[in-house]
This record gives sequence, structure tokens and C-alpha cells, in this order.
Amino acid sequence: MEWKPDKSLQVPVYIQISDYFETRILNGEYPSGSSLPSERALAALLDVNRSTIISAYDQLNSLGIVKRVKGFGTVVTLQKNEEGNVKRVPNWEEYVKGGMRHLNDPITRQIHKIVGTDKPYLNFAIGELSPDLFPVKLMQEAHSQLELSQYLGYEHIQGNLRLRETISEHLRQYRHIPSTASSVLVTSGAQQALQLIIQCLLQPGDAIAIEDPSYCYSLPIFHSAGLRTYRLPVERNGIDPEQIVSLYKQHRIKMVFVNPIFHNPTGTTLSYERRKRLLEISTKYGIAIVEDDPYSLTSYDHDTRSTLKSMDQDGSVLYVSSLSKIVSSGLRIGWITGPQSVIQRLTDAKQQLDFGHSNIPQWIASQLLSSGELDNHLTKLRTGLLSKLELTVNALRAELGDEVRFQAPLGGIHLWCELPGEWDELKLFNLAIDNGVVFTPGSTLGSSSRRVRLTYSKVDDLLIPQGIRKFAEAFRSLNSATANKPR
Amino acid sequence: MEWKPDKSLQVPVYIQISDYFETRILNGEYPSGSSLPSERALAALLDVNRSTIISAYDQLNSLGIVKRVKGFGTVVTLQKNEEGNVKRVPNWEEYVKGGMRHLNDPITRQIHKIVGTDKPYLNFAIGELSPDLFPVKLMQEAHSQLELSQYLGYEHIQGNLRLRETISEHLRQYRHIPSTASSVLVTSGAQQALQLIIQCLLQPGDAIAIEDPSYCYSLPIFHSAGLRTYRLPVERNGIDPEQIVSLYKQHRIKMVFVNPIFHNPTGTTLSYERRKRLLEISTKYGIAIVEDDPYSLTSYDHDTRSTLKSMDQDGSVLYVSSLSKIVSSGLRIGWITGPQSVIQRLTDAKQQLDFGHSNIPQWIASQLLSSGELDNHLTKLRTGLLSKLELTVNALRAELGDEVRFQAPLGGIHLWCELPGEWDELKLFNLAIDNGVVFTPGSTLGSSSRRVRLTYSKVDDLLIPQGIRKFAEAFRSLNSATANKPR
Repeated sequence: MEWKPDKSLQVPVYIQISDYFETRILNGEYPSGSSLPSERALAALLDVNRSTIISAYDQLNSLGIVKRVKGFGTVVTLQKNEEGNVKRVPNWEEYVKGGMRHLNDPITRQIHKIVGTDKPYLNFAIGELSPDLFPVKLMQEAHSQLELSQYLGYEHIQGNLRLRETISEHLRQYRHIPSTASSVLVTSGAQQALQLIIQCLLQPGDAIAIEDPSYCYSLPIFHSAGLRTYRLPVERNGIDPEQIVSLYKQHRIKMVFVNPIFHNPTGTTLSYERRKRLLEISTKYGIAIVEDDPYSLTSYDHDTRSTLKSMDQDGSVLYVSSLSKIVSSGLRIGWITGPQSVIQRLTDAKQQLDFGHSNIPQWIASQLLSSGELDNHLTKLRTGLLSKLELTVNALRAELGDEVRFQAPLGGIHLWCELPGEWDELKLFNLAIDNGVVFTPGSTLGSSSRRVRLTYSKVDDLLIPQGIRKFAEAFRSLNSATANKPR
Repeated sequence: MEWKPDKSLQVPVYIQISDYFETRILNGEYPSGSSLPSERALAALLDVNRSTIISAYDQLNSLGIVKRVKGFGTVVTLQKNEEGNVKRVPNWEEYVKGGMRHLNDPITRQIHKIVGTDKPYLNFAIGELSPDLFPVKLMQEAHSQLELSQYLGYEHIQGNLRLRETISEHLRQYRHIPSTASSVLVTSGAQQALQLIIQCLLQPGDAIAIEDPSYCYSLPIFHSAGLRTYRLPVERNGIDPEQIVSLYKQHRIKMVFVNPIFHNPTGTTLSYERRKRLLEISTKYGIAIVEDDPYSLTSYDHDTRSTLKSMDQDGSVLYVSSLSKIVSSGLRIGWITGPQSVIQRLTDAKQQLDFGHSNIPQWIASQLLSSGELDNHLTKLRTGLLSKLELTVNALRAELGDEVRFQAPLGGIHLWCELPGEWDELKLFNLAIDNGVVFTPGSTLGSSSRRVRLTYSKVDDLLIPQGIRKFAEAFRSLNSATANKPR
């Protein structure tokens, strides 16, 4: 072997070695089934570390042209086509393993798999309304008035102007937030708003704070973006704003993500004093706040709790909300309001992501929000959700008595439960699935203690007791037979 | 000053200095209006390079608590709130400047600004059909059959099952591509499919090849992702596949993005021989191919040109298409088909991006594709597009004679024109806008020669001659009066 890698080149030595063999393999000098030199021998021959040879062979392996076979070393594995030429199909497995975006965790993936399918699960995992809580009649009316021919071209990327005006008026009337059509961006649910904020306003390595627990932990979007995330434990009255100060001093956090009203998953609300203090801290240290507010209009006691944004005198809050939890998740209508410079930046990115939102759902949302019937719908919705909560709580008490602990929320759609003892979360999840029930394990939401989130908005009233019974059965069978049951 | 930075710490020295002053400024030791030490003096005092001090002061500047004032050095600029406490509102300007996602270029942003507005431009820039080419009646029928109540919850994240089955059948029938519902992912237009491929299958630093010119250059999505892009010049018969071999040998490109049929912007079609050779190269070197195919069903000569994917025996092609250019862009219905492992990975990412596509547009698309009326619509569409092309070509000849050169396409929606002489692209763009006409300058599409793309699908037949006249006027006024006109 006359060839030697050139250590003075910019190309790493292992790549040079990998390239050398790749060319020779494709030329037929190493036919399919032949072995490459042993790692040790080649390292000596080329005067490099053995680890460099391993990297080079790994590289060839990832190209799909060699396999490392125990006892045989590194074997060339080439397909040929009909004409006898070497054939190397793109190695999709390697492509799929790469990629900068992180995968969802396995439990979340399993939960998503049954979204939108006909599988007959009693679903306490998904944050969606049951069909009887949708304002079907209102939407049908909106729908029947649609002049379809006017809504077939691209929509304004920031969102249909009339919808943005309607949202702006809705924000004023229902959430006491001043805004204008030009400071609102329509997004595909609140989730896309979070995604856009991360991609447009933060950089890899930036530090942010998120609540603990939080639905945010079920989203790999923060880590995909290379952000450092710090935790703000959620107490009975929400997060303690003073902890933001120490996080700022230690880590220079740039942004805080909060869901202050009927928090997902704990159901708690950040107290008025803490909301005020949070804003003070934001404007003392210049830390941006992202307020996610899907639930504030669902208060069972009809008490209005002020959104942070409505208290925000200095414009330090980006306010995110959606129709998913109060009207219909299938419309995928969310929005964000904040300083115009931010909205413009996010709109530009939305163009790159999906060229704007589909226009028919925007039209329906706009009709619905301006119909004058939202109040009636919300009243029905609150009553319906409260009834589901009561059914859930009663069933839990009946099935598990004092074994289960929770603080019933005053709004929202989630019940955060503590179950006693030492039990395996994944086993409980699988047992429940076997029993036809899905829930969200606490660890998926970042919780380190043994918790489960029961989202009660989706399951039919009549089926809630049965669903909770099956869940309780899973829990009891786990406790009584963990050791015996081979899973 | 007793304090000194600790060079043994992991925290960079400039950050330590910035932190030191930040704390003192917030404590009031440096009140608003006071100056920090001069860079030179502080560098000497702390025994560091002056450049370190500059970085530290830049950091304080980006935090919004100092300003660099010429002649005055570094001045503390703090707001106070009503209680007299220091106040520092989040510096949105800095957030907006950061962010990992790149901005669109200024011309693209200007073009997008008028999308979906009522501004009366004759728009030769946007790839959208004119209202008379939409299958309005078909869609109204689909729409009137919608059982709305069934489409209000979350849809399957991969896309509505019936729509995926319909797309799969459509692919078989119209594009000779075998697929199954499980190997199709519904996306928000083709653009989201590209976005997902980049984020899920590639890593920063990976090399890819894209056509030159290409609409891809108008998308910062490749560079936002840190990819190295290499160019494949488009000739009369499309790209030369042999150039992929040399790009592979030099740069180890991992993926090739092509738009083989009625290419955007040149209108050319990759010849059958070149398509075959492209596939051979793909499976010789293991390079994945992404085929974007928005236009193949628009052939004016009714000749079917085989998609790469229909010729792909080894599964090395990811096939992307949409309804945007043949039915309605406002539905935002696109799709991708490929190996199941890839589709699963992309579906998982789509969940993170937007939690699946809005469901009503999916339902309409599904009805429309399975209505049996697509053939009639396509016939009308082709006739309509050809008529618009002829009007555009005739008007160009009438206005600019031999000054303008182009190869009229046999399908698609774009005319790629060469205009003679030395003229300033941005000036032409602005003059045309002043004249009420928008077009896409060649540089936006990666072209280094003076070209313009005239997209003729959107403008009303009656207005095309007027639009081209105004465009020609802009071009002539540019040539005659460039020097005199103050712009």
C-alpha cells in the first residue's frame, strides 16, 4: 500500500482513509465479500491511531458499503444491478438517524399514534374537546356562509386580515389585551408559535426557564434548538418569580416560558402578586416572557383571571393562544401577539415553514369569533368541562379512595394526580393501554415524582367512570402483581 | 477597582467583565448617564486585551443598559419605573437580530408582503393560479358534502387516512408511482416537506446539490440549517448528472434536490436519458434524491413525462408534490412519499412543528381527488395556462421584440427571460413595482446572469398585455434614464 493520508490537509485523516477505500471498493478493487485490512494492521501501515481506522471503517459502514462482522473484520457488502454494476442504494436508516431535529420520546410517540385513528381508546392523554363540546352549529353556520371562490389563493402569510382584526377585537374584549391586526400573527396552533419564537429569537446555547412540570418537556423543540433549559418548580400558586432572578444571575436566562392560568399539567394559576412580580423581574433584568394561554376562558367559577399580557405595561410579554382548547383543535388556529418587530420576524419565518395558514379554517374562525355567540358557547363549554372534571374526580375517589391525591383545578382540562407507592411508570402506561385507556405519565411532562396527568376534556361523560375504572384496575394490578407478571 | 476577572474559570473573561458591570449598574453604582471606564484604561487595569473590553461593552450594549456614544465613551442608559427603580425592558431588537433561522432576502420579503392583500398589483411573481383556473364548482360540491361535526378534532398527524389513500391512488393513476397510505405524509404545501427533509435527514455541515437557478435560492431554509450547497447548472435538457459524480467525489454530497419536469424557473424538463442516468448515479454512490414535482400534470402537449419516482426501482427518491399549482394554493395541501422509515421520522417532526394539518382542507382535497372530475379540470387548466403563456409571449414580443430572449416551456407556469444590456436588477424591480407590476428577479433564484422570471398563471388574461407593457416600460425607462433618475 503506497498511499498514505496527508496530515497537513484540512480534511480529517479518517475521512481521507474512508474516501480511499470507498473509491477502491466502487472501482471493484475490493469486491463484495472481501475483507478490508484489520484495524490494527492498517493503523500500523498508515502510521495512525487505531481509533482513526475505527472511525474510517464506521464511516464506510454508515455509507452502507461495508459491514463489521464479528470474527471476520470489515467485510465489503455491495449490491450489483442487472448489468453487474456496483449498486449502493441511499442508506435511509443512516439518514433517519441523523437529522438535527430530535425525536419525540417513545411514550409521546405512542400517544400520538392513536391521534386521529379509529382505535377505540378512552383517551385521557390528548388535550382535545369531546365532540359534544364543539360549537358545531355555530361552525356549520359559518361554514354555510363561506364564499369558497374567494378563499382559494394564497392567504396573507401573517394571516387573513379580517381574522387578525377579529382576534384583535377578541383579545381586547375577552382578555383585556390591546393589540392591532398588524401585531397579530396567525399560527398553526400555539405549538407553531412556540416553534417560531425559538427559531427566530433564540440561538443555540441560550438559556431559558420553563415551568416544572410542563407540557414543554413533551416537546423536543427546545433541545432540538440547542437551548439550555432551567426549571421553575410550579407550586400551589404557580412558579416563584424570585427563582428567575437567581437563574438570571447564574445562567443569564434570556426568556421565560409560562402558562400562568390553569397550568398544564398542574391546573394551578399563578397568583396575582406573583404575576405582578414576574413582570417586575422581566423589566428589571430585561428577560422576555412568553405567556401561553390556552385555558383562561374556561374558568369554572366565572372569575376572570388577568393574563400577564393584560398587565404588561412595557411590552415584555409575547402572548400565545389558540382556539384548540375552546373551539376546535382541528382548525389549527393559534396566534401570537407582541411587538411588531417580533411579529414581522416570525411572519417571515412562517413563510419559510409553510407559506401561511390554510385559508378556509381562517375564515371559519373569523366568522365564529365575530358571531356574537361566543359567550353562549363558552358558558356551555365551562359547564361541560366542570361536569367532566366532577365525573373524573368522583370516579377516582370511588376507585382509588385516598390512594390518589390531587388538587381539583378551577378551569382548564387537566387533573394532575399523585399515586402512592413505588411503581413503574412505563408498566402502568402499558397496562392501561392494554385496558383500553391512555393517559400521560408525569415524566413525559418533566416530573420526577410519580404523577399522572388525566386530561378529562375528550372522553364522553358516559364513559369517564368506565375509563377511570380501567385505569384504576391497571394501577391495582401493577401494585399487586408487578413481580409475577412477565411484561 | 479591586475586582479582577478569573482567567481560570470556564466563563469567558469578557462575560465576567460584562457581568461585573451589569450587576453594578443594576445596583445603582453607575447611575444612568454616567460613563464606564475607557476601554484603554480598563484594559490596563484588568490586565486584559482591549478587544476583550470591547466585547464586554458590546455585551452590555446588547443588554440595552449602556450605549456607545462617540466622544463620550460607554454611557449607562437606564430607564426607571414610577417607583424610581431601574427598568430594563427586554431588548426585542436584539432578540430579533439573533435567532437561528435566516431572514428571507429583501426582495422576497417585498414580494411576500403583497401576497393575500388587496393591493392592485399585476403579480407575475407568485406561483398561484388565477381565480378562473380554480376548480371552484368541484370544490363547492366537495364543500357542501362536508359533515363538519366529524372534522373538528385533531386529525391524524400523518394526514387524514382517507386523503392518504386518495393521494396514493392518485399517484398510481396519474404519476405511475406505487405507494400506500402509510408511505404518504400530508404536508402544508411542498415547502413544509422540504423543511422536514432538511431538519430530519440532514445535519449542519452536510453537503447537498441544488439546481442553478432554482426557487430553492429564494428559500433560506438550506442555509438556516447550516448545509453546504453546491450548484448543478440547468441546461436545455436539465442538469448534467455527471456533475453530481464530481460533486460527490469532491464534497461527498448527501442529497440532490431536483425539479425535473417543467423546472422552476427555467421551464425545462430533464431528458429521459438524464433522468435514467441520475437514478443510476444515485444508486451507485448512495446519494438520496428529492424530487419536487408540482407541475408534471400541466403539460400543454398532453405528453406524459415520467417522474423520477416512477422510474425509481431502488427507492432512492423522495417524491414531493402538492395541489398548490393544479387546484388551489390556499388549501395548503402537499405531500411526500418515500420509504416508511423516512415518512415516520418526518411525521414525528410534523407533530412538533404544527401538530398536523388542518382537517377541513384535507377533506376537500380528498373529495376533489376522488371525484372523477380531475381529468376535466386538468384539461381546462392546461388550456388556460397555455393561453396565458401565449398572451405573455405575444405581449413580450410586441413590447420588447428581440430584446428579450426565452425558451417557451411546454408546461408549468414560469417563463424565464433574458434581457440584454447592463441593468440594475433592484432598480428594475422597483420601477416595475412603481408601475404596478411585480416579477421575480433572477438573482433571487440564484441566477448570476441578468434574468427575470415571469410567472403567468395568476394574472387575468385580459390584464396580461397591460402587465407586460408596464413591465417593458419599466425596462425601457431603466435603460434610457438610469443616470438621470434619482432613486
